Amino acid sequence: MMGRFRRQASLTTGRIEAFSDGVFAIAITLLVLEIGVPELGEADSLVAALGHLWPSYFGYAFGFFIVGVYWVNHHHLFSLFRRSDHVFGLVNVLFLATIAFIPFPTSVLAEYATQPTHQAEAIGFYLFALILPALAWNLVWLYASVSRRLIDERLAPAYVRHLTVQFALSIATYTAAFALALVAPEAGLAVAVGVSLLYVMPPRRPEYLAEPVASTHGV
Amino acid sequence: MMGRFRRQASLTTGRIEAFSDGVFAIAITLLVLEIGVPELGEADSLVAALGHLWPSYFGYAFGFFIVGVYWVNHHHLFSLFRRSDHVFGLVNVLFLATIAFIPFPTSVLAEYATQPTHQAEAIGFYLFALILPALAWNLVWLYASVSRRLIDERLAPAYVRHLTVQFALSIATYTAAFALALVAPEAGLAVAVGVSLLYVMPPRRPEYLAEPVASTHGV
Amino acid sequence: MMGRFRRQASLTTGRIEAFSDGVFAIAITLLVLEIGVPELGEADSLVAALGHLWPSYFGYAFGFFIVGVYWVNHHHLFSLFRRSDHVFGLVNVLFLATIAFIPFPTSVLAEYATQPTHQAEAIGFYLFALILPALAWNLVWLYASVSRRLIDERLAPAYVRHLTVQFALSIATYTAAFALALVAPEAGLAVAVGVSLLYVMPPRRPEYLAEPVASTHGV
Amino acid sequence: MMGRFRRQASLTTGRIEAFSDGVFAIAITLLVLEIGVPELGEADSLVAALGHLWPSYFGYAFGFFIVGVYWVNHHHLFSLFRRSDHVFGLVNVLFLATIAFIPFPTSVLAEYATQPTHQAEAIGFYLFALILPALAWNLVWLYASVSRRLIDERLAPAYVRHLTVQFALSIATYTAAFALALVAPEAGLAVAVGVSLLYVMPPRRPEYLAEPVASTHGV
Repeated sequence: MMGRFRRQASLTTGRIEAFSDGVFAIAITLLVLEIGVPELGEADSLVAALGHLWPSYFGYAFGFFIVGVYWVNHHHLFSLFRRSDHVFGLVNVLFLATIAFIPFPTSVLAEYATQPTHQAEAIGFYLFALILPALAWNLVWLYASVSRRLIDERLAPAYVRHLTVQFALSIATYTAAFALALVAPEAGLAVAVGVSLLYVMPPRRPEYLAEPVASTHGV
Repeated sequence: MMGRFRRQASLTTGRIEAFSDGVFAIAITLLVLEIGVPELGEADSLVAALGHLWPSYFGYAFGFFIVGVYWVNHHHLFSLFRRSDHVFGLVNVLFLATIAFIPFPTSVLAEYATQPTHQAEAIGFYLFALILPALAWNLVWLYASVSRRLIDERLAPAYVRHLTVQFALSIATYTAAFALALVAPEAGLAVAVGVSLLYVMPPRRPEYLAEPVASTHGV
Repeated sequence: MMGRFRRQASLTTGRIEAFSDGVFAIAITLLVLEIGVPELGEADSLVAALGHLWPSYFGYAFGFFIVGVYWVNHHHLFSLFRRSDHVFGLVNVLFLATIAFIPFPTSVLAEYATQPTHQAEAIGFYLFALILPALAWNLVWLYASVSRRLIDERLAPAYVRHLTVQFALSIATYTAAFALALVAPEAGLAVAVGVSLLYVMPPRRPEYLAEPVASTHGV
Repeated sequence: MMGRFRRQASLTTGRIEAFSDGVFAIAITLLVLEIGVPELGEADSLVAALGHLWPSYFGYAFGFFIVGVYWVNHHHLFSLFRRSDHVFGLVNVLFLATIAFIPFPTSVLAEYATQPTHQAEAIGFYLFALILPALAWNLVWLYASVSRRLIDERLAPAYVRHLTVQFALSIATYTAAFALALVAPEAGLAVAVGVSLLYVMPPRRPEYLAEPVASTHGV
């Protein structure tokens, strides 16, 4: 006598998007807290001290860009999903954990990027931290797309494969930038920044299978 | 001549959910602030110092998981509610206060988990703080479910009882983990983590009474 | 040839409510940042140190309660509004500024409430800060209700007057608590807490004028 | 066989507005964190110390006002938009980066506005930082309005030109305030505050072209 009624899923993709937007917005705004007000003596120049904070400004600007790009692409990705489930909600929370973590390596970079003895390590740690959201992003995608568990069933298989390859490549790229940084920190950082800037380009439009035509014989 | 018009409640369950989502999203994102940038001398290794922060990483990861699980389940719970009232809004605020508090014991744990003389106390305080949301969650549920004040009246009584028991058990479990920690801190922490991981499992689907059938033959 | 098209106001009451919810949610969650992790020597007891933070816990709990109550009542108030305008959006921003300010006097209270020489001043400053949202709330209400600028025109005049008086009384009460604190700090604080707890009671239901009946015999 | 289906854009103007509201709400609420709790000796007066924080209070109040005004006007602006695209999402993220940055120059101002040797530099930096959102705002507008890429095609060309001129003037004004501050810091600050207060005035109502009338004689 039970279970006869169907109700809307308690955790819709819309809810997950709204929660994710909240985390994106907070993580992106918290980045400003890593820029520390310089402490000056009487004779010091405030302008000079503010100038020396350039690693903080770089960290703020690039962090804003990275999180902003993930936010835009997160909406693009979710426009491909039709369903959601409990585990998917938690997999997305895992992805958000890698986004919300970004202010920490950014602070480390800002603090140590100008100290010759620690610069290489700071850049390495920063680039390592950029691999994490790429990994978690792939987990979100694979959970949703394998066996078409959650995605729109009308999506063209070629398009799904295209995304799978493209997302896997982003892990490879950030890992390569990290590996390069182990021998040449600034080159590694430059590669990561350069590759990230490519995301200014819009993602490829979703491609759908032709709909089964209504007035048919056969299918 | 007054009071003839009925209007939507000013505080709908949707509003409460949206506000709660905001608090969940902020509390979860603030967890990163407890990870302090290490202070180094010239000769120190940054990588080694970052490695020593493992209690902070654990606190961040587990806090993210705990708050994420509460967020998912909060939506599940609210899918069972049909109504809301002023006091319920405040009871939910009380629950949110226990969630938004989590960054503090997490900071305490991160700071003192590696200091032998304070480790036991830090773990104990952390586990104590995990009892609080479990308690408040039960308050939310009891306020809503006793006499079916706010919940969907079609919910099966057995399902309501099932939740009441399950939620009460969560208090018992976290209290047991805390009690265990008083004699064996690490074991208590392990129990709390282990039990929490069970919440990766989806909650049981709501069960509803059969609807009174209007025009029937059989069912 | 211009201005023929009417569009939705760019700043609806719904938008203002959503933005206000964001500020409420952030301000309430930031309260946890005022609880500082205690610094200990080897021989100090962490539990004892955590116990000494009781002014911080009080500040957290009472701040959460106050902001939570304002949040609930803000929704109640906005359920009475039909329109909005540019200046009203900014008057509401002013109100939000007094809410978002609360973490600061809370920090001052937490820091100095246990220091005999500064306790009286800390409590006084805290109670002074509680007058500000009461003042701004009245400004929001007066801007909206005078000449029924923004409120539902069907609201009963007696109900509108009732709110005007009740809101003005809240200024008087918090001002009295502040004045009392100048001679007896703890008594002033107790009055403010006691009065605030009254807001657990739901606000009076809106009362509306009888609708002009279209096709009538009598009423 | 692909691409036959049209779906809603994954990043609608509504989504961008909601995300922007989140960043506005967080940035405005974080302003309170720049007000530091004063550190006192036994003999110091807390009230006096709190009074000396007036640059912090000014920074908080004016920052709240500035961000609040941008928030109100952002909604006004977005009411003129019909479409959105990937790049526009990122241009808006750039604008948000200039808003979320405001807490930092506010902290610098609060810290150094009362130190004679650094006051001029602190005010200059603050006014420089106020130019940034004005610049980015113009970028948002130009991206959307040039060739009517994203705006409502029925908007009257004169109204579009009016906004273009008005927004460009805001860059000029804040730049002038900054330039003035290089020779007379307090005068520059006064100009910036005075000009900003003008935004209490509502923006001019959108003007639309007459719709082509379907069944017409004349117009």
